[in-house]
Amino acid sequence: MSARCTVATMNEASKPPMRDALVAAAFQLFLEHGYDGTTIDDIAAFAGVGRRSFFRYFPTKEDVVFPDHERCLADMTEFLAASADTDDPVDRVCDAARLVLRMYAENPTFSVQRYQLTKQVTGLRAYELSVVWRYERTLANHLRDRYADRTDGRLRANVIAAAVVAAHNHALRDWLRSDGRSDPMTAVDRALEFVRTAWGSRRGEQQEPETEDVVVVITKRNTPMWRVVREIEASTDNK
Amino acid sequence: MSARCTVATMNEASKPPMRDALVAAAFQLFLEHGYDGTTIDDIAAFAGVGRRSFFRYFPTKEDVVFPDHERCLADMTEFLAASADTDDPVDRVCDAARLVLRMYAENPTFSVQRYQLTKQVTGLRAYELSVVWRYERTLANHLRDRYADRTDGRLRANVIAAAVVAAHNHALRDWLRSDGRSDPMTAVDRALEFVRTAWGSRRGEQQEPETEDVVVVITKRNTPMWRVVREIEASTDNK
Repeated sequence: MSARCTVATMNEASKPPMRDALVAAAFQLFLEHGYDGTTIDDIAAFAGVGRRSFFRYFPTKEDVVFPDHERCLADMTEFLAASADTDDPVDRVCDAARLVLRMYAENPTFSVQRYQLTKQVTGLRAYELSVVWRYERTLANHLRDRYADRTDGRLRANVIAAAVVAAHNHALRDWLRSDGRSDPMTAVDRALEFVRTAWGSRRGEQQEPETEDVVVVITKRNTPMWRVVREIEASTDNK
Repeated sequence: MSARCTVATMNEASKPPMRDALVAAAFQLFLEHGYDGTTIDDIAAFAGVGRRSFFRYFPTKEDVVFPDHERCLADMTEFLAASADTDDPVDRVCDAARLVLRMYAENPTFSVQRYQLTKQVTGLRAYELSVVWRYERTLANHLRDRYADRTDGRLRANVIAAAVVAAHNHALRDWLRSDGRSDPMTAVDRALEFVRTAWGSRRGEQQEPETEDVVVVITKRNTPMWRVVREIEASTDNK
């Protein structure tokens, strides 16, 4: 996968850019005084900039809590647009979902702090739901294009996008609850495999690698054996 | 299904209760002056009651736009709690989702008006997402209990709940976009069948009713025929 989402690094170079400084200042104040007890003026002053500088980077106080989703949404859109016709659509949206998890996993401390904060503040939960919805729409729009010639294409796209997001969020939540200590990529692979098994064209490939051709025979229980043998012989070279 | 959600009837008896009167007043004012151009005081005055009466029924202005979700969530919870162990879990949560669609379908005019309003007002879309999330949680919690003895139970519950909600919302949106003219129950049946086919224990039952036992044999292509015959004979009474 070429596209990657990156997070605002909290412990980066000695002179972080102003945007990162505002994020760092905001989180330090949120931890000390709570989210509601911190104003935009407090954040700007703590970062040593004016109020207008804050709004140059973040339209609202919620946005400073989730500074990387816009870029990740753009990366996801670009990644999906670069799909080849030969890519399995379900595999592709699963890979797109992994971009989001990787963004969280790149900075465990920041992600876990934000998770704790979001659990406490209703407005942040609402913001998060709206972001999740935008990821889901991005995946669904891609699938809709890929399934354009199916009669159930729109339904299929909407349901699979929701299932992929739910599987991703399941793995993400488990990782956040482990305080960022468990292995998120293995967990998300397992969760997304559950969706691929239901709907991907190469479903179940990971669990049961095929090394040889197999023949599947389905017959009613009372079929005479000579008919079973004849059917197998007729459809294979096993004689 | 015994439980049913009902909507605040806008054209009910000659003396509607105060709660219904407030909903009716709110929607008339929203249509005339827009959502943002209408205050809670305006609504209360138009309904002929005081501001405090409004807050007795609705904590916020958003809540008067969605007056029936709390009751529908309670009905859904009750319906799921009344499940028998023999009920297929996926069938049961599909039936629970139908309760929501029926609530919308009982009053097409009101539902379509609200849909138009919600599309225009960001705060209402956020409210709606939070309600959808609560329905999804309610379904997922039920499935989690039913799948408690599976190792993938939590994942399965979360993904199926999301898929059911997405299928339901797909049918609901199509119906709202038709201005309430299409048949929502047929559409939701078709959409939910897509989920049942993937994960229900009686998946695909509607399409392919089984009338006789079948035997499935899976073998590598180069297995000698005598071994195929012996395996079939050993596992069935077909000799």
